Amino acid sequence: MTIRIIVAGASGKMGQEVVKLINRTEHFQLVGAVSRTYAKQEIQKGAKYYATLEEALDANEADVIVDFTSPEMIKKHLQIACAYRVRPVVGTTGLTEEELNQLTVEFKQANLGGIIAPNFAIGAILMMRFAAQAAKYLPHVEIIESHHDRKLDAPSGTSLKTAELITESRRQMKQGHPKEIEMWEGARGADYHGFRIHSVRLPGLVAHQEVLFGGTGQLLTIRHDSLNRESFMPGVQIAVEKVLEMNQLVYGLENILEV
Amino acid sequence: MTIRIIVAGASGKMGQEVVKLINRTEHFQLVGAVSRTYAKQEIQKGAKYYATLEEALDANEADVIVDFTSPEMIKKHLQIACAYRVRPVVGTTGLTEEELNQLTVEFKQANLGGIIAPNFAIGAILMMRFAAQAAKYLPHVEIIESHHDRKLDAPSGTSLKTAELITESRRQMKQGHPKEIEMWEGARGADYHGFRIHSVRLPGLVAHQEVLFGGTGQLLTIRHDSLNRESFMPGVQIAVEKVLEMNQLVYGLENILEV
Amino acid sequence: MTIRIIVAGASGKMGQEVVKLINRTEHFQLVGAVSRTYAKQEIQKGAKYYATLEEALDANEADVIVDFTSPEMIKKHLQIACAYRVRPVVGTTGLTEEELNQLTVEFKQANLGGIIAPNFAIGAILMMRFAAQAAKYLPHVEIIESHHDRKLDAPSGTSLKTAELITESRRQMKQGHPKEIEMWEGARGADYHGFRIHSVRLPGLVAHQEVLFGGTGQLLTIRHDSLNRESFMPGVQIAVEKVLEMNQLVYGLENILEV
Amino acid sequence: MTIRIIVAGASGKMGQEVVKLINRTEHFQLVGAVSRTYAKQEIQKGAKYYATLEEALDANEADVIVDFTSPEMIKKHLQIACAYRVRPVVGTTGLTEEELNQLTVEFKQANLGGIIAPNFAIGAILMMRFAAQAAKYLPHVEIIESHHDRKLDAPSGTSLKTAELITESRRQMKQGHPKEIEMWEGARGADYHGFRIHSVRLPGLVAHQEVLFGGTGQLLTIRHDSLNRESFMPGVQIAVEKVLEMNQLVYGLENILEV
Repeated sequence: MTIRIIVAGASGKMGQEVVKLINRTEHFQLVGAVSRTYAKQEIQKGAKYYATLEEALDANEADVIVDFTSPEMIKKHLQIACAYRVRPVVGTTGLTEEELNQLTVEFKQANLGGIIAPNFAIGAILMMRFAAQAAKYLPHVEIIESHHDRKLDAPSGTSLKTAELITESRRQMKQGHPKEIEMWEGARGADYHGFRIHSVRLPGLVAHQEVLFGGTGQLLTIRHDSLNRESFMPGVQIAVEKVLEMNQLVYGLENILEV
Repeated sequence: MTIRIIVAGASGKMGQEVVKLINRTEHFQLVGAVSRTYAKQEIQKGAKYYATLEEALDANEADVIVDFTSPEMIKKHLQIACAYRVRPVVGTTGLTEEELNQLTVEFKQANLGGIIAPNFAIGAILMMRFAAQAAKYLPHVEIIESHHDRKLDAPSGTSLKTAELITESRRQMKQGHPKEIEMWEGARGADYHGFRIHSVRLPGLVAHQEVLFGGTGQLLTIRHDSLNRESFMPGVQIAVEKVLEMNQLVYGLENILEV
Repeated sequence: MTIRIIVAGASGKMGQEVVKLINRTEHFQLVGAVSRTYAKQEIQKGAKYYATLEEALDANEADVIVDFTSPEMIKKHLQIACAYRVRPVVGTTGLTEEELNQLTVEFKQANLGGIIAPNFAIGAILMMRFAAQAAKYLPHVEIIESHHDRKLDAPSGTSLKTAELITESRRQMKQGHPKEIEMWEGARGADYHGFRIHSVRLPGLVAHQEVLFGGTGQLLTIRHDSLNRESFMPGVQIAVEKVLEMNQLVYGLENILEV
Repeated sequence: MTIRIIVAGASGKMGQEVVKLINRTEHFQLVGAVSRTYAKQEIQKGAKYYATLEEALDANEADVIVDFTSPEMIKKHLQIACAYRVRPVVGTTGLTEEELNQLTVEFKQANLGGIIAPNFAIGAILMMRFAAQAAKYLPHVEIIESHHDRKLDAPSGTSLKTAELITESRRQMKQGHPKEIEMWEGARGADYHGFRIHSVRLPGLVAHQEVLFGGTGQLLTIRHDSLNRESFMPGVQIAVEKVLEMNQLVYGLENILEV
């Protein structure tokens, strides 16, 4: 069966990758795209740009909307998707918890599936899941995350999310020698509830993370390297395929991966 | 509750580590040890060596037998454990499939728990499990295993076990460029059902393995480094604790870890 | 002092990077570009495209020619550079040894500097140099090179160049256990004069190489990761600056780096 | 030619490794050992323990003294070595700068070679040297040093020595985004004159260091892993061989390695 897809935010960097994904996937078909800038132009043979999501849905039969627009659009787009009974796969975040809860209720009442995911890189999601599982058995852990030197915040959002998941499964403990001394301040990194996070920033790096678990006589390392936007496409593909079988709104790709 | 333990093979290298583990674990107590060489001597205050497992069991109340003896002893020791209703944790392999099946039946009839594990390094077991899970979503995989240069066989047993587990969950496919050319024979490693295993041998190395999963724009790496025998002790500890709640014979530490 | 530069092959992928380099380097100035396709158009304010190198040189005073054209053009371009007494920095290879020798003589007679380099990635050149130096003291070595899975040849050219340099400084010896057995053929990699090269090919990878040196109780690893064409630009910059002080033709960036 | 060696501190952990080194090296011969505890006993066939270095030298013809005693003994031992004209290879530190200067003069006047080295691990010395060389061309650098969790001080002495050497060859600059924000304090590590050092502490680790150099589109990594005391022996061997050709006192193994 061919899955008919509308791409919202099709002219953005992520949207363009999604269009390429659709075109190289045999059972995927691009039926329309949303972009105020290119409205009424052809995006490619057999698919046009529309100014709004409603116009795209009025003009085309679709099974799934893939949405990489801006945080302000998301709520409205999800409600439209629900009204048209077309399943959304959303890669933009920015909903408040209240908005998310309300939309979850609406999708449940409509008995319709939908996926919102802040990170579609399957490798990153597997890394986080494995890290949480390993922490149960090897509670001595440190995280080293490495990014390009134009990044403003440290530690990275992914490292904090990983640390949070680790904390849920890890026996609470203070690591390291109790009399440890930092001869140069900051050497031991940030203390996140008893374990350390280190942030490396260098030109040449893209987005990398290493979670190290130490036990007597052994070390377990889980590492993810992300090099470009394409890395999100396999996750988008799985989401598009899975959402058709779902009947509720789910937040986080990790909740639809069966591992 | 204190767990009373008899160590069989207590004078061997692994046995000595087990004794240290027991002494540093508050709720573990060494009540006796089996070693023909040291029979009748004290192993430490409050615990003696016995020539045979039966003698040790006749002289002491015990909850668990930890057994790192030789392959020839295992079958008999397991039967004695069953008869005395003392739960065994066995780190030696060498049973035939038939023997294993028969013992499984005997333990089931006795409603008694027991664990046999060829590898007690939790990190290695987690690595194998995570690798099998990741292969489902990222089927492009290669294994690099690295050992000291006195190792005779390549690839390592652990890498082959990992490869087998990966194969069970990975979609069958041939990796690499179909027109790939090896200018120097062997460069691309061993072909294991469509993916590659590489064996590095150098002085200074101990026992290491890296499983690399590649996807568009991303890489997921799971690595285990094993530095010494101590690395097996946390796995032994978990087995001793778990076996008390079990009522059957289980093969493989992976089957008692809840992850 | 501002260095005035003409870029040959300016419309190619490498050429475009060179133009960007020139524009972001304060003491570099783009005075002209060579491209048959764009001849007579402006490449940017103050610099035009010319159909041939001679035309570009006739119309502009220049100090250096940066040349990333095709192998067929190189010999002629070098002779023109010599005639016009403008120093060339060339990133294309393809000269025969005889041609190279002849050109070297011509540049010597002209007392003119020039640089031809097959690889401008400084990191890769340092990796090779360090590997050659380390092999003198730690002769047990293996190379793991990792590339994207569309690469046809294995092992990579860089790994073979590294292996060659290692061989020159390494005491000849056969590594590994003499009775080593490959249970799966190819596991131990390609045998290059007594040591091993392993080639990993996975989607998500770009161009990476690791040289491992093992000694009793220790491991030294030198690794280079190359992610894109930009990685060559710092090497081009150094070459442009150095070539002005040189009075002969030099082959290989390693010969102008003082380390 | 066989090199006749006296080992001072022969009963210590390092001394024992040195004795093993001598016994497995064909052209090395153990002629005597110094240990107050074992004085007059045989250390092995053909070599005895002596209470003092003088006694050992009075009783045996020797070419080299290998000395892994305590800081208090060093000065006296070096003066004795000078008086007996037997070349010392010393692995203990603790001399003041003044003492070192004075001894250097004494050895020069005696026209005698000697080596004092705080670190005999060749791999670590190569790592430091390569790092200093690379910093010249790739000035964006960070150091990650990783040790067992019983280590008290952070960052490690080796990482600080490396950082000092890097600083000598690296163009002074402040790395990272100027508006960088640490959301969790310490995440970006210790700031050492404009670049960062990170200290990881986990059980299972021994002594490891990674120096990362980032450039546009590329990364160069130099890593050293030290697993045990044996790792110092190749450095001791080279020192013993080199010291015979030397006619002055040298501090630091790096100064006798020709790379």
